[in-house]
Amino acid sequence: MAEENKMTPIAAESLQFHADVRGKIEVISKVEIKDKHDLSIAYTPGVAQPCLEIQKDINKSYELTRRWNMCAVITDGTAVLGLGDIGPEAGMPVMEGKCALFKAFADVDAFPICIKSKDVDEIVRTIYLISGSFGGINLEDIAAPRCFEIERKLKEICDIPVFHDDQHGTAIVVGAALINAAKCAKKELKDLTVVINGAGAAGCSIGKFLLSLGIGDLIMVDINGIINRDEQYSNKAHNEMAQISNKHNKKGKLADAMKGSDVFIGVSRPKLVTPEMVSTMNEKAIVFPMANPTPEIFPDEAKAGGAYIVGTGRSDYPNQINNVLAFPGIFRGAFDVRASDINDEMQIAASYAIASLVSDEELSPENIMPKAFDPRVGKTVAKAVAEAARKSGVARI
Amino acid sequence: MAEENKMTPIAAESLQFHADVRGKIEVISKVEIKDKHDLSIAYTPGVAQPCLEIQKDINKSYELTRRWNMCAVITDGTAVLGLGDIGPEAGMPVMEGKCALFKAFADVDAFPICIKSKDVDEIVRTIYLISGSFGGINLEDIAAPRCFEIERKLKEICDIPVFHDDQHGTAIVVGAALINAAKCAKKELKDLTVVINGAGAAGCSIGKFLLSLGIGDLIMVDINGIINRDEQYSNKAHNEMAQISNKHNKKGKLADAMKGSDVFIGVSRPKLVTPEMVSTMNEKAIVFPMANPTPEIFPDEAKAGGAYIVGTGRSDYPNQINNVLAFPGIFRGAFDVRASDINDEMQIAASYAIASLVSDEELSPENIMPKAFDPRVGKTVAKAVAEAARKSGVARI
Repeated sequence: MAEENKMTPIAAESLQFHADVRGKIEVISKVEIKDKHDLSIAYTPGVAQPCLEIQKDINKSYELTRRWNMCAVITDGTAVLGLGDIGPEAGMPVMEGKCALFKAFADVDAFPICIKSKDVDEIVRTIYLISGSFGGINLEDIAAPRCFEIERKLKEICDIPVFHDDQHGTAIVVGAALINAAKCAKKELKDLTVVINGAGAAGCSIGKFLLSLGIGDLIMVDINGIINRDEQYSNKAHNEMAQISNKHNKKGKLADAMKGSDVFIGVSRPKLVTPEMVSTMNEKAIVFPMANPTPEIFPDEAKAGGAYIVGTGRSDYPNQINNVLAFPGIFRGAFDVRASDINDEMQIAASYAIASLVSDEELSPENIMPKAFDPRVGKTVAKAVAEAARKSGVARI
Repeated sequence: MAEENKMTPIAAESLQFHADVRGKIEVISKVEIKDKHDLSIAYTPGVAQPCLEIQKDINKSYELTRRWNMCAVITDGTAVLGLGDIGPEAGMPVMEGKCALFKAFADVDAFPICIKSKDVDEIVRTIYLISGSFGGINLEDIAAPRCFEIERKLKEICDIPVFHDDQHGTAIVVGAALINAAKCAKKELKDLTVVINGAGAAGCSIGKFLLSLGIGDLIMVDINGIINRDEQYSNKAHNEMAQISNKHNKKGKLADAMKGSDVFIGVSRPKLVTPEMVSTMNEKAIVFPMANPTPEIFPDEAKAGGAYIVGTGRSDYPNQINNVLAFPGIFRGAFDVRASDINDEMQIAASYAIASLVSDEELSPENIMPKAFDPRVGKTVAKAVAEAARKSGVARI
């Protein structure tokens, strides 16, 4: 997730495209207002009646306004892509892009909002106060560890789903990739030792999610080395991770962590991993270097080091591990049953649903993930998520 | 602005319509995302470039995102139509309707937001914190006197236009009606004594606006009688109005105020005015009873009392005084020059622009206002507002 300051051809093309389109979303009217009668039905005086119905029963807001399909995509602009803290307004092209993807992949209406604050409680309060306007909240590109607390507090006070995609969306697609990679390598999740390099929002969330999928052991590594129980961390999330990971309380650097591990997952910085480091992993090593656009190690180098399966965030290599496989269908499923939450059960269901789209016949080391543009993805994920919401008791219709 | 609790045919039709359409707005994607290349341009990795451009120059947010055309329509649900404090979610059908009108009449993208708070500072802070997502803020259906303070404070801290339509939109269309009514009655604005019944958000704002248009005297009346300088009011706005109105410090009830006045404007409750009261006004009396749907006096009764010109908020009588003539074109004009404010000059320009659409030949006691669906309205208002923004120094492009 590194910054590339020089303008690549894609960057130049994207800039020109953004200047031409002047906004990737548009708010349109679904109703025709061509005469007095239309006005009296869509607006005053007729509109008083749906207002009164919602006053009597707030659930009617899902039937008489767009709330049932409306997701807020909210950032504070502090961790935008790999660019870091670039400010709320500067994060908006990403938020608009996310909204466009919500619509394109799952017909979810999504609206981008940036918040001019870095204070946890102020951000939480602001989002809570506007939450009656939406059916769900997608948090985006908020720096760790603030994002953990913001999400936790919002989940406590909001009666609509709150989902930090950088954490959970990423975890869900990595989970799907690992489910299929393990199957392909004929390994059981419970036997896998997984090393995650990068202990920010994505890394910690992936770690916790993979534990909930049942992996054998997890070793988290950050810039200071392996997270272990003999250290006191200023970052609360790191202390928490130390408690639930690293069974043998291993210490050392990334190279020490990787030795004898089965899976490497990178959500860190470019080119931190060498073929030699990969060669110290167990056989049929699974390597997901997901720093974007430049991964921790390029696929050909990882293969040279002996990796059996390699997946990245990039679309120009096999096995792209891309959030777009998850978040549209997840919100579609949550919205379809008016879920009050996007809970663990729904997230695990999403992961298995994504994995299920690669058949046993199709599954190979070069093909563990469905394609981002496979039209089955959104629907399949939505169905599984809606079912899991029902079974876990958070569906409201 | 009274409540009608029984379900009229229009109310029933509107309720069914709202249940069928399930939201009068929709957020759509303006970009096609059909393959990897599209994704890399509209989203990662290309999107990093417009983000970096905005980080360098925040004004670029108007060129590279939808901000240039995006208006927030925000309520706290405390003064929705004539229904009063029905709660934030229950106000949303009106907010969505307003957004649909913005799009239909002036191609402004507008997005509805309700805020779950009645605290002035909290509402102000919330709106400020999300203001980087928008090009302008339209406040709607917020109870007086809170709405005055919210708007004042927001105008101080926001660098985008903030406009409380219930105050200023109404004032602008009443101003337009009065400009043409006076012309039709061959009276000068400076010679008119105007009585306004109802000293809430709309009434006070109309009063101040008409003073800025140059009327001779203003008498504000509320439920306790004429607002004068010998009373101390708990409502700050009333003390302020007492200072700038009522040259002769008249006291008494509505009937006392109307005697010898030239104009009656009602933004209060149904059926408070009798033909007898109208008959005490000066000749060629101008009567705008705008309580909706049931006016302070019906046009035929006002005429029976001797009124020369009658205008109401209703579309089924002549001379409809309808906000929809103002707000779409005002935001269109403000957005077209990226105005930092919608100031007095722009509001006065809007009023004269609306009035100008009734030609001298067309002008008559039964025809002082352009029709809501006259396609010239939005463009004519926008042009006048943009010019006034330029002249008054608030245009930024």
